[in-house]
Amino acid sequence: MGGLSDRAVRNLSILREKRPLIHNITNFVVMNYTANALLAMGASPVMAHAENEVEEMVSFAGALVLNIGTLTEDWVDSMIKAGKKASELGIPVVLDPVGSGATSLRTNSAKKITEETDVSVIRGNASEILSLRNAQSKTKGVDSIHTVEEAAESAKILANELGTTLAITGPTDLITDGSRVIEVSNGHPLMRYVTGTGCTATVTIGAFLAIDDDPVTATATALAFFGLAGEVAGERASAPGSFMIELLDALYTITPERLGIGCKIRED
Amino acid sequence: MGGLSDRAVRNLSILREKRPLIHNITNFVVMNYTANALLAMGASPVMAHAENEVEEMVSFAGALVLNIGTLTEDWVDSMIKAGKKASELGIPVVLDPVGSGATSLRTNSAKKITEETDVSVIRGNASEILSLRNAQSKTKGVDSIHTVEEAAESAKILANELGTTLAITGPTDLITDGSRVIEVSNGHPLMRYVTGTGCTATVTIGAFLAIDDDPVTATATALAFFGLAGEVAGERASAPGSFMIELLDALYTITPERLGIGCKIRED
Amino acid sequence: MGGLSDRAVRNLSILREKRPLIHNITNFVVMNYTANALLAMGASPVMAHAENEVEEMVSFAGALVLNIGTLTEDWVDSMIKAGKKASELGIPVVLDPVGSGATSLRTNSAKKITEETDVSVIRGNASEILSLRNAQSKTKGVDSIHTVEEAAESAKILANELGTTLAITGPTDLITDGSRVIEVSNGHPLMRYVTGTGCTATVTIGAFLAIDDDPVTATATALAFFGLAGEVAGERASAPGSFMIELLDALYTITPERLGIGCKIRED
Repeated sequence: MGGLSDRAVRNLSILREKRPLIHNITNFVVMNYTANALLAMGASPVMAHAENEVEEMVSFAGALVLNIGTLTEDWVDSMIKAGKKASELGIPVVLDPVGSGATSLRTNSAKKITEETDVSVIRGNASEILSLRNAQSKTKGVDSIHTVEEAAESAKILANELGTTLAITGPTDLITDGSRVIEVSNGHPLMRYVTGTGCTATVTIGAFLAIDDDPVTATATALAFFGLAGEVAGERASAPGSFMIELLDALYTITPERLGIGCKIRED
Repeated sequence: MGGLSDRAVRNLSILREKRPLIHNITNFVVMNYTANALLAMGASPVMAHAENEVEEMVSFAGALVLNIGTLTEDWVDSMIKAGKKASELGIPVVLDPVGSGATSLRTNSAKKITEETDVSVIRGNASEILSLRNAQSKTKGVDSIHTVEEAAESAKILANELGTTLAITGPTDLITDGSRVIEVSNGHPLMRYVTGTGCTATVTIGAFLAIDDDPVTATATALAFFGLAGEVAGERASAPGSFMIELLDALYTITPERLGIGCKIRED
Repeated sequence: MGGLSDRAVRNLSILREKRPLIHNITNFVVMNYTANALLAMGASPVMAHAENEVEEMVSFAGALVLNIGTLTEDWVDSMIKAGKKASELGIPVVLDPVGSGATSLRTNSAKKITEETDVSVIRGNASEILSLRNAQSKTKGVDSIHTVEEAAESAKILANELGTTLAITGPTDLITDGSRVIEVSNGHPLMRYVTGTGCTATVTIGAFLAIDDDPVTATATALAFFGLAGEVAGERASAPGSFMIELLDALYTITPERLGIGCKIRED
């Protein structure tokens, strides 16, 4: 798609120029890595979760990232408070329902956030996304037991029901708002050997939402960029430790032009 | 010991094949690194500490890792809840009493967890392990002020008293269940310049406990594997930053055969 | 300045010899990286924030680091409790007012800590330091919107008012206790692409405070050392991921002699 690869080029250029502030309420495991990823790609991250500061902090932000890994209930309250304020101010929100489907706390929290705030995009693996529709769907810890293909049809229905854009990531990523369906096939097998690559895909979507009003194109171009960074890292590293460092480097070194050539985005 | 090096080969093969889910309730400093270490070696980590989800989460797990670094009392409650559920379901528990002996909160929490749950293995440095027996024993922050040799005799007695397996790590590691005593001499001096290498040894034990029913052999082979990863990393890096990345790489690249050749396990 | 470069040489030698314990109550984003930085440079870090253990832990420490990133009110209580105990025992305290000026929680917490404990050094970017004097001064998330030069005059006045040493870091760092003014121009542009380099500068100051009684010279020599580590890393890496690893390596490999030659400290 010429249109979408041009959009990818433009989005990455604008991101680097504007350096939007991305407010994250996220899990303890990935805070450092996702902050570094946002800095490397050209955004400005802030992590803040105190209930008595999230509304003030989010009001400066270009996007809000909510991530339910290592969740407790007080954090859900802060997420909803920040999410409501963001919705009120027209600031886009992206939700990462980490482990939804594994425990009721996670499934219920993901659903509550979806109901009470105006979420632009939800990104998860197939099991996490399916669990938002069907309480019977299970997740193994934070790993998917379903394929992207299995989840595709449900995703279209669920996107319509929720009025949001869904991104299911895996070997091929699927993005849908219920009518449009886009597939992104950038990526590298070592990504699943680094903790928080899913969460890092989510913050990349957050950064692109801050500079692209269309959640579908923002998400597709963000995932192509992040997947391409995985490919570039995979050319330079063959084991997970060095791969995760090369991935940060690639988020910094990939130019908009390189993204235009390398992105693999296909609209159905 | 032919027997123990064969066991090491077999354990690493089974780990990579089964990819057991390891549930961690651990400290903020090492969450990212230990999750990455578990992924690199072939396990599947999940971090979850909310009191209202730990019982559900641990029930899917192959092992539970409890680590008291950066502790507060609500986390101890979650650890005990998860530990009791694990004990009930026959899921092995490994405890890392980080900083036990440095403050009463840590010493008392480590003892409480030991008393109220069925811990298969406790891994710590010499001071931490000694503090579980003797309230007068001191730890400097999270660093040992005793040698493994000083702690050996006490460890045998304490293992018997607690009915558990103890692993004291240092230049040479000592593993005992009160009757058997095994020494592992794999490792590298740069390991003490990377934060959380002790905690990472503990999660490696957790991963091996998930696939080997005998806590003594699981622990000895896990520590040999982890120490060998340190040796491989030390051949490729000479300073702590690159060493910690090479260590993750080595956990991924070391084959069972390489472990069989390189492990240094000696039964007394 | 011969005097200050000699002091730098001596401070780094003493640090490596004494390995002081540095107690950190800090944010979730940087806990791992700052612990690794302290280990690499030759100190011994401990992270502990529970209200019922901080007084006991800080009493063993050579210095206390307080950092208000990812703050909640219970953490402020622990910081003040630890800070008071440290003041009582004559243990130096360094404060990093991360994001002060961005939200009232952060500005008020920074001020409260400053008022209720005896802080030896406060390190922040220009906006964070200005916010401590002027409630109207704003910070963009955790990024400065003011230059070091803009903040210099205010810093001298504020240092006098607070009776503390202030360090404003940026392309050139400014250190003042209200009468002396020192500039340090070591550093590298990639430092701002790695999360927590400011926080890591702060823990380096903490380590030097543990072995140098004069807060002004401790801070100046610490910032020269940390900036030089950035320069060494910048010779070996050209993107943020590998840069952050090389930076840890440099904190370990730079000798006191190399620091004496490379430090760029100028007293006005």
